[in-house]
Amino acid sequence: MTQLTLVIGNKNYSSWSLRPWLLMKQFELDFAEIRIPLYTPESISTLQQYSPSGKVPVLLHDDLTVWDSLAICEYIAETFPHLSCWPENKIARAFARSISAEMHSGFQNLRQNMPMNCRNKYPGQGLVTGVQQDINRITDIWEKCKQSFGANGKFLFGNFTIADAMFAPVAMRFIAYDVKLDSIARNYVQAIWELPAMQEWIKSAKNEIEVISKYEF
Amino acid sequence: MTQLTLVIGNKNYSSWSLRPWLLMKQFELDFAEIRIPLYTPESISTLQQYSPSGKVPVLLHDDLTVWDSLAICEYIAETFPHLSCWPENKIARAFARSISAEMHSGFQNLRQNMPMNCRNKYPGQGLVTGVQQDINRITDIWEKCKQSFGANGKFLFGNFTIADAMFAPVAMRFIAYDVKLDSIARNYVQAIWELPAMQEWIKSAKNEIEVISKYEF
Repeated sequence: MTQLTLVIGNKNYSSWSLRPWLLMKQFELDFAEIRIPLYTPESISTLQQYSPSGKVPVLLHDDLTVWDSLAICEYIAETFPHLSCWPENKIARAFARSISAEMHSGFQNLRQNMPMNCRNKYPGQGLVTGVQQDINRITDIWEKCKQSFGANGKFLFGNFTIADAMFAPVAMRFIAYDVKLDSIARNYVQAIWELPAMQEWIKSAKNEIEVISKYEF
Repeated sequence: MTQLTLVIGNKNYSSWSLRPWLLMKQFELDFAEIRIPLYTPESISTLQQYSPSGKVPVLLHDDLTVWDSLAICEYIAETFPHLSCWPENKIARAFARSISAEMHSGFQNLRQNMPMNCRNKYPGQGLVTGVQQDINRITDIWEKCKQSFGANGKFLFGNFTIADAMFAPVAMRFIAYDVKLDSIARNYVQAIWELPAMQEWIKSAKNEIEVISKYEF
């Protein structure tokens, strides 16, 4: 296999970076990592070296550049079909793509008011208008998904898939802001948190020295 | 082939609905259409009958439900592989997925300030802070894409692909707001506008009687 390189932002804050990183770690792909701390004087010029959109994450594979968390996940799924990154069942896969895309373009209130933070806890913060509605829709997705497709495992479709990678940043938010959850959602958040790859990410996040004040309370 | 049914919003306004509709028309798929006028007293309950997210578009195919414009496009690509909905070349396909995903989650300034409107023209309106930056990035994507992959045809990758469907609402916005464009972008907008399927959509939009005042100037 030729070299895969994933360009990411701060592990403490970059929810978009976490998604493909977690997917690739979870499926034991061998990849190099380039971390670019965001919102520093050098960030923009460094990002432009790697990223056509000026944003993270970006995956480099030989001559190929893929950017955006969801496009990278689709690329990994297509390039390594034996990994079953999407559920194998067609109906489950359509559901997985739907909820992943809904996560990808939606939940603005939650994302703006509860920024991901892997090392600090802000219980009760961020719960402004519209956020509870986003939380309710997400836990509704998780419950429907677990009931329909996820009985045989800890994850949304039983085994870990791209859909779990897409929702992992939300699980981290629910932990950081101590969001009240029923048992299905709470167990799912726990399953994401317990992943060895997730623990590795959190450990690195805690070792980062940068502070982005607009993402702290 | 079993029945495909696409649930959409108002043709005049629903940019998200236009994407899979245009893709499916352009590839001559036979499908039924359910149009739900948005922001009426009945909209929410009618949407809930069809859409797990409460949003359009939704595709129904036998027992299967797919929602979100990008997930529907991926489903169509996977279900009808002979159509080549994505570019066949791997590098081009990765590029197509990247720009489609970037469009799917980004360009908030443009989307909020220049809502799609297929029947009315508001030249010069909507160009508030941040919108020109979005326009510049979009035209930069189009130019890079045409130069790298689209020399042999009118569309981003030569032939029409999902990427064109994803950017078609932006082309309609550029027409409605008379956005200044250089020749590559202008020709591309023209190519989208001239598609028979696009003309069919516009004709229907002009025949719609509903007015959503927050999307008019």
